[in-house]
Amino acid sequence: MKMNKGQKILKSAKKIIPGGNQLLSKRSEMFAPNVWPTYFSKAKGCEIWDLENRKYFDFAGMGVTACLLGYADNFVNKKVKDTIDKASLTTLNSVDEIKLAKKLLKIHNWADMAKFSKSGGEACLVAIRLARAYSKKQNIAFCGYHGWHDWYLAANLNNKKNLDNQLLPGLSTLGVSKSYSNSLFPFLYNDIDSLKKILIKKNNIGIIIMEPMRFTEPKNNFLKKVKTLAKKNNIILIFDEITTGFKDNLGGLHLKLNVIPDIAIFGKAMGNGFPISAVIGKKKIMSLSNKSFISSTMWTEQIGFVAANATIEKLEKNKINRKNVKTGLKIKKIWQECARKNNIKIKIGGINSLPLFKFDYKNEEAITTFVTKQMLNYNFLASTYPAATASYNDKILDKYARALNNVFFELSKYVNFNKKIPLKKKDIKGSKFGRLNG
Amino acid sequence: MKMNKGQKILKSAKKIIPGGNQLLSKRSEMFAPNVWPTYFSKAKGCEIWDLENRKYFDFAGMGVTACLLGYADNFVNKKVKDTIDKASLTTLNSVDEIKLAKKLLKIHNWADMAKFSKSGGEACLVAIRLARAYSKKQNIAFCGYHGWHDWYLAANLNNKKNLDNQLLPGLSTLGVSKSYSNSLFPFLYNDIDSLKKILIKKNNIGIIIMEPMRFTEPKNNFLKKVKTLAKKNNIILIFDEITTGFKDNLGGLHLKLNVIPDIAIFGKAMGNGFPISAVIGKKKIMSLSNKSFISSTMWTEQIGFVAANATIEKLEKNKINRKNVKTGLKIKKIWQECARKNNIKIKIGGINSLPLFKFDYKNEEAITTFVTKQMLNYNFLASTYPAATASYNDKILDKYARALNNVFFELSKYVNFNKKIPLKKKDIKGSKFGRLNG
Repeated sequence: MKMNKGQKILKSAKKIIPGGNQLLSKRSEMFAPNVWPTYFSKAKGCEIWDLENRKYFDFAGMGVTACLLGYADNFVNKKVKDTIDKASLTTLNSVDEIKLAKKLLKIHNWADMAKFSKSGGEACLVAIRLARAYSKKQNIAFCGYHGWHDWYLAANLNNKKNLDNQLLPGLSTLGVSKSYSNSLFPFLYNDIDSLKKILIKKNNIGIIIMEPMRFTEPKNNFLKKVKTLAKKNNIILIFDEITTGFKDNLGGLHLKLNVIPDIAIFGKAMGNGFPISAVIGKKKIMSLSNKSFISSTMWTEQIGFVAANATIEKLEKNKINRKNVKTGLKIKKIWQECARKNNIKIKIGGINSLPLFKFDYKNEEAITTFVTKQMLNYNFLASTYPAATASYNDKILDKYARALNNVFFELSKYVNFNKKIPLKKKDIKGSKFGRLNG
Repeated sequence: MKMNKGQKILKSAKKIIPGGNQLLSKRSEMFAPNVWPTYFSKAKGCEIWDLENRKYFDFAGMGVTACLLGYADNFVNKKVKDTIDKASLTTLNSVDEIKLAKKLLKIHNWADMAKFSKSGGEACLVAIRLARAYSKKQNIAFCGYHGWHDWYLAANLNNKKNLDNQLLPGLSTLGVSKSYSNSLFPFLYNDIDSLKKILIKKNNIGIIIMEPMRFTEPKNNFLKKVKTLAKKNNIILIFDEITTGFKDNLGGLHLKLNVIPDIAIFGKAMGNGFPISAVIGKKKIMSLSNKSFISSTMWTEQIGFVAANATIEKLEKNKINRKNVKTGLKIKKIWQECARKNNIKIKIGGINSLPLFKFDYKNEEAITTFVTKQMLNYNFLASTYPAATASYNDKILDKYARALNNVFFELSKYVNFNKKIPLKKKDIKGSKFGRLNG
C-alpha cells in the first residue's frame, strides 16, 4: 500500500524529533499506524484537511478535547488576532488576566483567587506546590491521569504497575528523580476503601489529587466520601479538571457533581485550543503563592487570557455545554444502535459531552484499528473517544451514523464468525506506553 | 500623588491573583512601586501605550528580552494570524514543528534532535529528565537561574542562601518537595574551583546545568574547563540559553563562545514573544525521550512553531543579531557618557545585545528607582537591564541619551552631595524575593 504524505513526513520527523511530535495522544500509533493522515493543512468547525487536501470530519477528539467551539472559531479567532495586532507580550501586563480571574471566580464562587499557566502539566505542578505549602505534609494520594511531571510518574518508582489502572499502562520512570520514591500513592475511582487504606497506612498524606470523573459516574457518594476523608485528615483536595472542565457544564464538572474541592485545575477546552491553564482555590492556600516562587515569562503572554475570555463568553451565551451534552448523548445512541444492529459488543461510558466506548473483545486493539482505518475511507477521523463540539449538526451526525453502521457491518463479518481481523501486527494501534513510544 | 489607572487596577488584581500577575520580573515592585504604568493597552516596535493612552519607549527589557524584532512585528504577526485562520491546534500535528527542528539543528550542527514545549521552566525540566535518563546519576551541579521548578528551588532546602549568588536572593522553598534535599549543588560563574569542589566531594553528580553567560564574560577558559570536567566525570552538560539564545548571534551564545554542550535549551527571543521553548541535543540523549514519558497537549499547538520559524527567518535575513549587538554597544556607551559627565559611579556588564548596569552605591535600589521614576517623566520605561531591539534607531537612542543625561544630572545632586534620595521606603524597588512578592 502506498504511504500517504503525512506518513512519509512522519518517518523523516522521527529522525529529528523523538517520537515525531510532542504528545503521545496525537501519534499515528494511537489511531491507525502507517495510514493515519498525521498532519493537517487547515481545519474549520469539525472539518479538517490533510496534507493531500483530503477533507475529514473529526470524530477523534477535536484536538484532545480542546476545541469544543469548533476549529478556528470566528469569534475567538477575531479577538485573538486583534490582540496580536496590539502585541501579545510586552514589558507590561495584560488586563485580560484579571478579567479571566474574575470570570472563573464568578463561575466557581467557592474559590477566591486564580493563577494561570500555559500547559496542563504546569497547572498541576502549581497546584501541588500550593497544596504542599499549605498542608506542610509531603505525600500525595492520587487517582487518574495528571501529566508527565516527575511528581506524578514517580508513582511507578516503587511499583512499576502503580499507574497501570489510571490511564496509560506501562509508563516508564526513566529519568524521573528517585528522590520522589515512596511519596505517591494511587487509589481507584469509586473504590473509597483504596483511599482509606492509604490514609490509614501512611501518615504523611497532605494532598489528594484526582479527576472528578473520567470513565464512569461517581457511585455511592464516592466524591463526597473523598471530600469527608480529606477534611477529616486535614488534606488538601485538588480536582484536576483539565479534561472534564468546560465540557458538560460551564466550569468544573464538580459544580454539576456538587462536591467542592480546595483547589481546581483547568486547561484544554477553556481556550478553544489556545494554550492556557488555570489553578483556582481558596485564599488561605492560593495566597501562599506570594511566599513561594512560582513565576514564568510565557504565562504573562496574553493570547491565552483573551482566548479563554472569548471561549467562556461564547460557551455561556450560546449555552454550548448543554448543546454538547445533547450531541454526546446522540453519539452514544448511534453507537448503541450500530452495535445492536450488527451484533457487536461494546461498552459505553464517559461524561456525556465526552462520550467513549470500548469494544468488548480480547482483540480490542485490532478491532478498534480496523474501525478507525475503515472510517478513514468514509472521510472520518474516528476514535473511540470523540468529543462533542458545537460544530456538529444532525446532518453530520447522520453521515457519521451511516458510515459507522457500514463499518460495524464489515466488522461483524469478522467478530461474529470468529475470523481474525485482517491487520498485520505493525498496523495495529497501541494502548500501552511501550508500544506507542517507538 | 494621584494613583495612575494601572496602579489602581493592580490593587484590585492582587485581591484575586496572588502578587497580581504571573511573573515576578513584571511586577511594579521590580521597577518603581506605586507609579509604574503596570498594564499596556497596545505596543508596536519599541513603543508601548499604557491604559491612559500615554506612550513610552521601552528600555526596560522588551518583554523580559523576548521581543527583539520589536513588538507586534508585522512579518511574524502575519504568519501567526494566517496560521490561526487555518486552526492552531487540532487532532492532527503541525508540519511547522519539523521545520523548526530542522532549522535549530542546522544552526547548531552538533545537535541531532529537538523537542519543544511552551515555557522556559518546562524546557529545563525536559532537559533535566533526559540528562538524568542518560547519566543515571541523580544529582545536579548548577550555576545561574533556571526557573521556579522544585528541582531548582530545592537548592535552598539545605541552605537557604544557596541561590543568593545566582540571580534572585532570598528565594523561598515553601511548598517545594523535601524529597530533593541534598540533590542540588550551586557553583559560581568564572570560579572553576567552586565546581571542582562539588565534583570531588559528591560522587553522584550526573548533570551540570548553567547559563553560558549572563553578567560577565567567561574568563581563563572557564567554559572550556567546565566542559572538560563534565567529560572527565561522565556528566551531561546543559547550557540554559533561554535568556542568552538568539541575542548576540543566531542561536545559542555557546556557538560564539565556542564551547559545545550535550544539551541546549532555548525560549524567550526565539518566538518574538509567542510562547515556544526548545531542547536540542545529541541523539544518544534525546532519543531516550522515547523511553521516558514527556508529553503535553499544549506543546502541539502550532503558533509557537510558526512564530519561531518566522522570527529566526527574519533574524537571519536582516542580520538583526549583529545589529542588536551594535545597538547594545551604543547603549553601553550612552551609560558610560552619562555617568562620566555627571560623576555617577556605575558598573556595566552583560552580553552586548543585553547590556546592563548597576549603580555602584550602597543605596543602589533607591537610586535605581529614582532614575526609573524620573525616566517615566520623559516617556521612557527604563530599567538597568534593557534589551537591544531591531526597533531602536539612532533618533530614539539620542532621545534616550538626552533623557538619561538629564536624570543622571538630577541624580548627581543627591549622590554627589551625600543627600538622601527623596523616596519613601514603600516607593523603592525591591531586589530580594521577600520584598517583591508581597
